[in-house]
Order: sequence, then structure tokens, then C-alpha cells
Amino acid sequence: MAKQLTSKSENYSQWYNDLVTKADLAENSAVRGSMVIKPYGYAIWEKMQRVLDDMFKETGHQNAYFPLFIPKSFFSKEASHVEGFAKECAVVTHYRLKNDESGKGVVVDPDAKLEEELIVRPTSETIIWDTYRKWIQSYRDLPLLINQWANVVRWEMRTRLFLRTAEFLWQEGHTAHATREEAVKEAETMLGVYADFAEKWMALPVLKGLKSPNERFAGAVETYCIEALMQDGKALQAGTSHFLGQNFAKAFDVQFLNKENKLEYVWATSWGVSTRLMGALIMSHSDDNGLVLPPKLAPIQVVIVPIYRKTEQLEAIREKAVEIMKSLKAKGISVKFDDRDTFKPGFKFAEWELKGVPVRFAIGPRDLENNTVEVARRDTLEKEVLQMENIAEKTEHLLESIQQNIYQKALDFREENTFKVDTWDEFKERIKKGGFVLAHWDGTPETEEKIKEETKATIRLIPMDGKKEAGKCIYSGKDSQQRVVFARAY
Amino acid sequence: MAKQLTSKSENYSQWYNDLVTKADLAENSAVRGSMVIKPYGYAIWEKMQRVLDDMFKETGHQNAYFPLFIPKSFFSKEASHVEGFAKECAVVTHYRLKNDESGKGVVVDPDAKLEEELIVRPTSETIIWDTYRKWIQSYRDLPLLINQWANVVRWEMRTRLFLRTAEFLWQEGHTAHATREEAVKEAETMLGVYADFAEKWMALPVLKGLKSPNERFAGAVETYCIEALMQDGKALQAGTSHFLGQNFAKAFDVQFLNKENKLEYVWATSWGVSTRLMGALIMSHSDDNGLVLPPKLAPIQVVIVPIYRKTEQLEAIREKAVEIMKSLKAKGISVKFDDRDTFKPGFKFAEWELKGVPVRFAIGPRDLENNTVEVARRDTLEKEVLQMENIAEKTEHLLESIQQNIYQKALDFREENTFKVDTWDEFKERIKKGGFVLAHWDGTPETEEKIKEETKATIRLIPMDGKKEAGKCIYSGKDSQQRVVFARAY
Repeated sequence: MAKQLTSKSENYSQWYNDLVTKADLAENSAVRGSMVIKPYGYAIWEKMQRVLDDMFKETGHQNAYFPLFIPKSFFSKEASHVEGFAKECAVVTHYRLKNDESGKGVVVDPDAKLEEELIVRPTSETIIWDTYRKWIQSYRDLPLLINQWANVVRWEMRTRLFLRTAEFLWQEGHTAHATREEAVKEAETMLGVYADFAEKWMALPVLKGLKSPNERFAGAVETYCIEALMQDGKALQAGTSHFLGQNFAKAFDVQFLNKENKLEYVWATSWGVSTRLMGALIMSHSDDNGLVLPPKLAPIQVVIVPIYRKTEQLEAIREKAVEIMKSLKAKGISVKFDDRDTFKPGFKFAEWELKGVPVRFAIGPRDLENNTVEVARRDTLEKEVLQMENIAEKTEHLLESIQQNIYQKALDFREENTFKVDTWDEFKERIKKGGFVLAHWDGTPETEEKIKEETKATIRLIPMDGKKEAGKCIYSGKDSQQRVVFARAY
Repeated sequence: MAKQLTSKSENYSQWYNDLVTKADLAENSAVRGSMVIKPYGYAIWEKMQRVLDDMFKETGHQNAYFPLFIPKSFFSKEASHVEGFAKECAVVTHYRLKNDESGKGVVVDPDAKLEEELIVRPTSETIIWDTYRKWIQSYRDLPLLINQWANVVRWEMRTRLFLRTAEFLWQEGHTAHATREEAVKEAETMLGVYADFAEKWMALPVLKGLKSPNERFAGAVETYCIEALMQDGKALQAGTSHFLGQNFAKAFDVQFLNKENKLEYVWATSWGVSTRLMGALIMSHSDDNGLVLPPKLAPIQVVIVPIYRKTEQLEAIREKAVEIMKSLKAKGISVKFDDRDTFKPGFKFAEWELKGVPVRFAIGPRDLENNTVEVARRDTLEKEVLQMENIAEKTEHLLESIQQNIYQKALDFREENTFKVDTWDEFKERIKKGGFVLAHWDGTPETEEKIKEETKATIRLIPMDGKKEAGKCIYSGKDSQQRVVFARAY
């Protein structure tokens, strides 16, 4: 297998596209902006889903399912929401096709026009809060802690596999609370869940913080987010959690009788992560040989490649491989024996490197004699020959070490690419080269907008643990109490 | 909690609707024909999904994800498919809304009309086979064994929760094979998986067979199905598996080089089950007190209700309950301790009966003294007082016994309601009363159509293990070689 990828240094964007398609993660479909998630890519997404779903349930949430379609009028009920969401979206106007009179295929039946158009959900706050009105009467009905796994559609003009597609898969949590404090706490808890997931499972260090008003979710009082730094120095928003105040409760008239028997509007949060995480995963760890997967999310953690000339050798190796697989599986390690006889070992090595399998075993006749195995780790590409004794324990430790190593590498990279900047000239220079830039900002949307126009950089977040520090806005020179994080972003 | 349900004997249809909404399974949404699946209902669906997904993976299938939208022209490519599917469907014609000039909400932007309309998938054969063309070149790429979990939309005029909704959730398997034999075997294997799932997990006995040409999937060469008998004597199609021949391969030009290096069209299957299974589950076992769930699919298998007057009593019971829960959980039994102090035990009993929890423990102060527990089983509503020793083992056996009992009850019911009929008068009389009717049919679509017109009965299936038996068609009197199964159906 020849090198298939454009190198990162040559063209990062092309490298990404090559990798996504050639590692069998996803591809573009016949429908503009919609992707096909291929089995190998979907297997990674399924692992993410399973882990996140368990984390949501451990924090008291239940899953449910709400309709794909939302009546157009619902979007007009929450004033800022409609501005943010009801514009670029897929609109269902008819419910029937009929045979074309010319005999060529089918055409829309003009008699089957809907009275009110339906919008394919870009996000579900409106239909869910319309439903919650029926479910919530008293403080006893609260909190309501619900999540849904769903597909959503936002009509994006420029799409990229996983990062920005018209249709994407995600989860959206929608919770209802009796008090502001409880809702704020929920939004922060879920941000913590996302950060934990990113760091412990994806091996992706993230910053936690608040969005500036310009970048807030349409309809939110506060948007919390996690932001990660990609290898090309651009930031990627990996998850958001919104404190919605009483905005949607008021828009959909959801009130409850509190313990004092008085009617109050319900407090809300929503939070989501999507298949965009796949893009973040790819752009955090991978290299010119292909994908590098954190062992905890790898569909195949170990691949065994037999090195043989004769069939008897293959059969002897197979016997050993079966033994190894048994001991690995007993430890919950997923393993594949690649006994395809239509490909040579070198081809297989390259293929599994491209697909990011964390550990590769190569076993040849001499290994059988010596009771050894050649072990290659994907992250460093290092090889060593190990004795077969306790191979499962050794593999387990190796997988842990790879998980830690790629996290540490990503963390080191982020730290090396995080800069404090105090002047406008320095800022403009720095932001071009990529990375997180910590700088003072005067707190106004106007300044943020100007900075974006002149440098393409946005405020990624206002750090939550941000130390107060008096300074002057890099752009306006006005007073500032805290540095915020700027970057160019995906 | 007063009796909330219309009784089955009074009005079966109303009983069903009452049960679905009052047991918190699902409800109608603001969007005509689309349901909201509530957390308790969704938890059952999730259990079904998990089991089926494991079964699919054990039989070598992988999951993937294909686009929600299908270009209109794709439907015209397979001649019979377009007749069956491209008619009553949701059509996306525009991709943008804009502010209404009068200032009232949003309207469709006429400038954002799609060149080609997009259909919200009613099933995905077309978009998937359009994709498979890129994936399949050689016999080495086959078989391709793929499943997707997705939402689909069919614009139904008369909808009923779970049984027939405009949007529903399902899985659809789409496989590609090098030979006819292999594809037929796949379609039969998956029918077997569905039958096993229905019988072993849902406790739902099913007949396996082939559809008559009239009832075949649009585009299939053969449709295999499983059919179950509901308590009201109507049949319900619980799953289908289609042998598609080369129809879709030809429509989408999917050819492969066989071992002899010749180009051939690929052979296909597709197979699916949906949230309709929830309807089947409900209508197989439930009673006038509410849902009866097979223990293997119950989100909560055991509920513990404390019987107490004083807080100290509750605390003493809680201590015992914690101990019980620990031992049950160690056996993988899901258990809930209902310590809500806002409801009386009688209310709780009725609520958990309504929700179909298979086993209820009641523990009062006297039970603590005697080291006993009152155990009620949902299926028979019988109670007995058990010694606390080995309570986890006893519960495990009880759950198994409930699972078996409700299966046996459903099987007995089906056998009591399966009739051999040999004359037209007898047939008309019998079919009115419900049940499966085994009768001879001359094999023609015309006769089938006539019988349907006159009796509302359809051929549910042609039994696969059907013994050959010469006879005369009940309608036409012509020769027949085998009885087929008629019923009125959901």
C-alpha cells in the first residue's frame, strides 16, 4: 500500500479529506452536503455514543424521542432563536408525489401542499418545550432530565465531512428545572461531562468557558463550551451546554406550581455534542501515515498480522493467534486476526496504520520458535519484540500508555501553542500562525466584531477559572478585567 | 390511582390508546402523525435495539449511516419501488426561510428553491445502492453486510401510536452478495433472527412465511415475514426480510468482477423492524390493569414498595431494601425502590401495574420481623409471601417463569385462534371473529383481491414449513397445493 495521504505539512485540509475517505470513515453522498458514515467511522461513533450515553444516565438523564419535523410557526415563538435557526433549513412543503404526465418519473403533486410548512429540525428546543408544557404542572414534575439521540439538518453552504455537514448526528439534552440555580448547575455539570469525555476517552485536552454574547446559542442566556486546539493551530468547538433561562418556557408557556402554590416559569438547559467530535478526534492525534485512535475508542485495539510463506506456517501462527486472542478478549481488548491471503504483510501494516489501530502484533515462524511477538505501537510507530508470557497484561499496559501518551502529546501541543499577547500588532502577527491567544478584551460585541473582521479570529471562550487580571483591551485600549481566548476556528 | 383504562372487552382500540399514553410510552405531538416516544417507552425500545444490534453483529453485520434525504429521481430508477414508496412522502422543496415582510414570523424564501426536490427517506434502498456502486468492484468486496438505525417518514393518513405513524424509528439492513443463493440465505437468516427475537425476548410467538405477490415489498423478488396474532384476533406483521434479486443492482448499475473475471450484477437483501414492535409487545400480553412486559425487555424488572406509617419504619425498610437491591443487581436484575412519600402504597401498586413491572415486592414492619417479603407477579397478579433467604435466586427464577408464562399464554391464545376452514361461508363467518384462518387459495392476485374486498382479510403469509396438501380454493374452487394464512390485520 503506497502512501495514500497528502502530507499534513503540504496541505492540512487535503490531508484531512484524504484521511477521512481513505481510512473508510465517511464520504460525500449524492445529496449535497450530506455524508455517508461508513462502517469503520460509524463503529467509532458508536463507541462514543455508548460512553456518553452511560455518562448521561449516571447523571440521572433518560432518553426519549421527539419528532423530526417542527411546524414553521414554532420557530417564531422565541425571538432570538428564529434569527439563529429558522433561516438555513430544509423545508417540507408537500406530502405527495405523482406520476409525471409525460411518463418520466415522478413530480410533486401540487394538490398535496401542506397548510403549514414543516422544518426538518435544526435543533429541538421548540418542539420539546411545546411538549414539556403538557408534562410539567407542579414542582413534583421537576427536574425533567431528558436526552435524545437524533439527526438534525442545517443547510450549510460549505460543508466538510464530519466538521460541517447539512445533516449530522448528535445528542441533545433538554432539561427543565424549578430554579435558576439548579438549571445553571445542570448546564455546568453537563459541560463537565463533555470535558471528562473529551479528555479521558478522546485523549483531547479542552478548555472550558463561556461564550461571548456574539457566539452564544440563539435563545440562550449563557452558552458554556469546550474548545480544543487542532494540529494546524485552529480551534474547534467540541461541545456546548446552554443555560436557557426562562426563554423557552415563556415562549411555549410552560409554568409550574411551586411549593408555595404559585405559578412560575420553568428554567431550562440544553446541551449537545455531534459527529463533529469525529473531526476533532482525527485532527488531534493523526499523522501522515493515517489515523491515530485513542485505544479507548478504537473499534479494533490490536491487530495480529501473520508473517508466513507456507500454509503450514500460517496454520501454526493461527494456533498461537487464537490463544492470544482468547487472553486479550478475556481482558476486554478487541482484537482482529488479519489472515487475508490476498495481501502481503507490508500492505496490511500500512492499512492498519491508516486505520489507526493502536497496537499491531506481527508473528512469524521465528517468533513461534522463540515464543515472542513483534509489537508495534501506532502512536510512536516504535516496535519491540516481547516475550509471549503475560501478553494480555503487557498489552493492557501498552494500551493505557498509548492513551496517556497521545493525551500528553495533545496537551503539550496546546501549551506550546497558547500565547499571552498584549498589543494589537503582536496579536495580528500571532493569530496568523495559529494557536490559542490569551488577550484582554473590552467586553463589547463591537470590538469582538472588529477583531474578527480584521483577523478572522473569534473569542473562543471566556475562561471559567479565569484569573482576574487588570489590563487593556488589545484593540480598543479600554479597561479589561480578564483575558479571553482568541483563535481562528473551524 | 383509580382504574384508568377503558377495558379491553369494552373497546380494544381505546384500551390500546389509553394504555400507550397512560403508561407513559408515547403520545401524539404537535406534528400530525408524528409521535413523541416518552422516556419509559423509549427505555423499552432501547432494550430492544440493544438486543437486536447484538444479534446483527453476531451474524456478521456492521452499522453505518446513510443520508436522510433522497433525490427525487432516485425513486424512479426502480420501477416497482417508485409505485410503492415515492407517493405518500415528505418532500423538501426549499432550503431557506426569511422574515415575513409584514413582520409576522417567517415565510419560505421563494429564491431558495431546490433544483431537484429531496424526499425524506421512506426506506433507503435507493440511496444505499447508489452508494454501493462505489463500494463494490470485485467479489472480494462481497458480501457487504450493513445495517442502519434510523428514522423514516411515510405520509400516513390514519395514524396510531407505534402501529402506524408518519415518522417512525427502525433498523434497515441492506446486504450485497455475489450469488442468488447467498442472498436468499441471508434473507432467511435475518427472518430467523427476527423470529428468535420475537419469541425469546418479546415472548411473542410468530409464524414465518412468504408474502403473496400483492403484499410483497415494492422492488422485492420475495418478501419473508413474521406475523403475530394480537389479543383482539387481528394479525400484526412484526418484521420483514426481502430478497431483492438483482433489481436494485440493475437500477443503480452495481456490478462486480466475479472469480472468473466477468462482470455480474450484485444480489441484494433488505430487512427491517421498527417501533411498530412496541405495538405488538403491548397488544400481546397486556391486560385491563395495564402493560404486561416480558421481564427480558422490562426497563425495571422489580419494584420495591415500602409499607409504613412512621419515618423510622421507612428507614428500617430502606435498610433491607438496599440489601435486596444489592443482591438483585449482582444478578443483573434491574430494581427500583419507590420511596416517594407523596403517594400511598395502593397508588404505587396501581402505577407499577400500569407500567408493567414484572415483579413487585412489598415490605412492611411485619416482614422485617419475619424476614419475609410479599411478592406479586404482574402476569398473573398472584401474591405470595416469601422468606428473604436467597431472594435474588428466587427472583431470578420468578422472572424466568414469568417470561415463559406469558410466551405460553400468547402461544395458547394463538393456537386457540387458528382455524382450518374449507368453505367460503365458513371463511366469511370465521374471519369476522378474528384469528388466523388456514385456507386454500388458488394462487392468483385476483382471488386475493376479491377476498380482501369482501372480508377485509389479507393473506398474511404462505407458511415456509407449510405441508403440501391438495385442496380447493375457498373462493374460486380452483386447485390449490397448500393452505395459506388469512387474517384481518393491523
